[in-house]
Amino acid sequence: MSLVPPVLAGERLALARLLTKVENNTPAGRAALVELFPHTGRAHLVGVTGAPGTGKSSLVNQLVRYYRHPADGGPPRQVAIVAVDPSSPFTGGAILGDRVRMRDLSGDPGVFIRSMAARGSLGGLAPATAAVAQVFDAAGFDLVLIETVGAGQAEVDVARLAHTTVVVEAPGLGDDIQAIKAGILEIADILVVNKADRPGVENAERALRGMLQLASPGPPLAHHHGWLETLAVEVPREAPTPAWEPPILRTVATEGAGVAELAKAIDRHRAYLESSGDWQRRDRARLRVELESLLRASLVARWRENVPADRYQDVLDRLAARQISPHQAVEALLDGDQLP
Amino acid sequence: MSLVPPVLAGERLALARLLTKVENNTPAGRAALVELFPHTGRAHLVGVTGAPGTGKSSLVNQLVRYYRHPADGGPPRQVAIVAVDPSSPFTGGAILGDRVRMRDLSGDPGVFIRSMAARGSLGGLAPATAAVAQVFDAAGFDLVLIETVGAGQAEVDVARLAHTTVVVEAPGLGDDIQAIKAGILEIADILVVNKADRPGVENAERALRGMLQLASPGPPLAHHHGWLETLAVEVPREAPTPAWEPPILRTVATEGAGVAELAKAIDRHRAYLESSGDWQRRDRARLRVELESLLRASLVARWRENVPADRYQDVLDRLAARQISPHQAVEALLDGDQLP
Repeated sequence: MSLVPPVLAGERLALARLLTKVENNTPAGRAALVELFPHTGRAHLVGVTGAPGTGKSSLVNQLVRYYRHPADGGPPRQVAIVAVDPSSPFTGGAILGDRVRMRDLSGDPGVFIRSMAARGSLGGLAPATAAVAQVFDAAGFDLVLIETVGAGQAEVDVARLAHTTVVVEAPGLGDDIQAIKAGILEIADILVVNKADRPGVENAERALRGMLQLASPGPPLAHHHGWLETLAVEVPREAPTPAWEPPILRTVATEGAGVAELAKAIDRHRAYLESSGDWQRRDRARLRVELESLLRASLVARWRENVPADRYQDVLDRLAARQISPHQAVEALLDGDQLP
Repeated sequence: MSLVPPVLAGERLALARLLTKVENNTPAGRAALVELFPHTGRAHLVGVTGAPGTGKSSLVNQLVRYYRHPADGGPPRQVAIVAVDPSSPFTGGAILGDRVRMRDLSGDPGVFIRSMAARGSLGGLAPATAAVAQVFDAAGFDLVLIETVGAGQAEVDVARLAHTTVVVEAPGLGDDIQAIKAGILEIADILVVNKADRPGVENAERALRGMLQLASPGPPLAHHHGWLETLAVEVPREAPTPAWEPPILRTVATEGAGVAELAKAIDRHRAYLESSGDWQRRDRARLRVELESLLRASLVARWRENVPADRYQDVLDRLAARQISPHQAVEALLDGDQLP
């Protein structure tokens, strides 16, 4: 029996079961994604990222608490958290997250938390992250918060996936973190200096402001189109939209300070995206990245079905013996060339 | 005129020019790699990795100084440094490295430094890193030190590329760094607590020791075979070798303290790899990863040549309109299926 109708009706147990099927890329999971896809496109996908030690998880917890009990008296919103855990790319273990968070947020049917390991050949986000976000979107969640730890590919991936990317910093996190920020800043829609009760907060903020000015000679959103790697065909660059100026906010997540302001900045960014037309552009860019990632995986899977195992071993043996080079090995495998 | 003979003869200008061709993946670069490949397999590839703020670059500089002027009176060795700079995955800029290092090491023909941006679809190491390491190997360098900043895919990539992986930590680098260590430890052959003159060094060392014990229920090297993602065919797992126990060393790179011990541990690890047969096994595993990465790129490039641009745009339009799902889009592009 299809899990799609109960998921669309908001049943949480069906949602949990479907997420597992989607994460494991089962035939039932893929079929459900096809059925759910027309119901997607409404949720606000918010990436929350930054270096280790910045307190991202606490901040995400506080954001969720705010969305459930808005201080301004607005209606509570349904929130999903996708916590991408890079702790072990090898064992696929997920040691962050669920248990610690559950103490805070358990029992609230308007909150759904999913931890995912950052496994898979692409590093960064697991290939299933986009699909999991789609399921939450179709299931009617207003916001999907995608949280990543680390300072590498995951940040880039999350910026490709999210409408709004929140980059979290904290005062005094070491010296060559500066070098990394330059790259991170290009993906930031909102900057947060968390742990703002610690010494060095002014310095951190000033450094961010300085790098922001350096990093954006043109409108920041131009970057978001520019970095898309094009697998197939160049899409003409759209005319620049009026620039969004990434705000720099201070928070103390452990005390909830600044969290309402952060939630409002996230809403403002959504409004900006919608009024500027960027909501549609980012949606299209995101779908394109997903399409190209699926294309790549399918091309490899189709090739794999057709190569005889002993042929592959033979090529690998000759490569290890330095009789052929890696490029010659690829030609031999793809074209069936005779080996020298 | 081919740059290969002068590179093999040790000419530095030819080496620099060839590296540029190889990094840019030009036809001349690819042809040179084929010619150079039979001369590879001798250099000791050493990855040096760890979180931001640990002082990796200083440590690498000190290691190079040691290799050039060994305190034990041994012969100086030729060392290449590949500094992979993740600062900006978008602009491809390389802001670390060369100028700062050159003050120390310039003018020594036994040292060659190359900065590479961590660009490219795989995140982490640039796809050309393996090829650059091969050029240094063929050019007769005894050691190739591959330095990466960040706590993500680059670490995984460097462990796949290197014979020996040195993971650098430092006391007091924040709280959720612990979560990341669990994954990093699985790739470490040698652990270094740098900045060991700072408070907290005992705690850092104790934490590493505890996590090492947790992380290795079996021989650590089994992981190094286990994590290889197999694109094509499973290779039978070799019998476990006697385990290498990753040592934990203390250094103060700014003063050179502990650097000789680190250099000796790196040599011991090479000796261990050779006596256990792991040198050959890792060599084969590394070549296999490179082969599969090239295969993937070639498959995509060949497909790209054959898909009409308007067909691709049409599929993307229908995807953005939610008329077809990403999986349906892939089928349409790969099989030429009619769209619904």
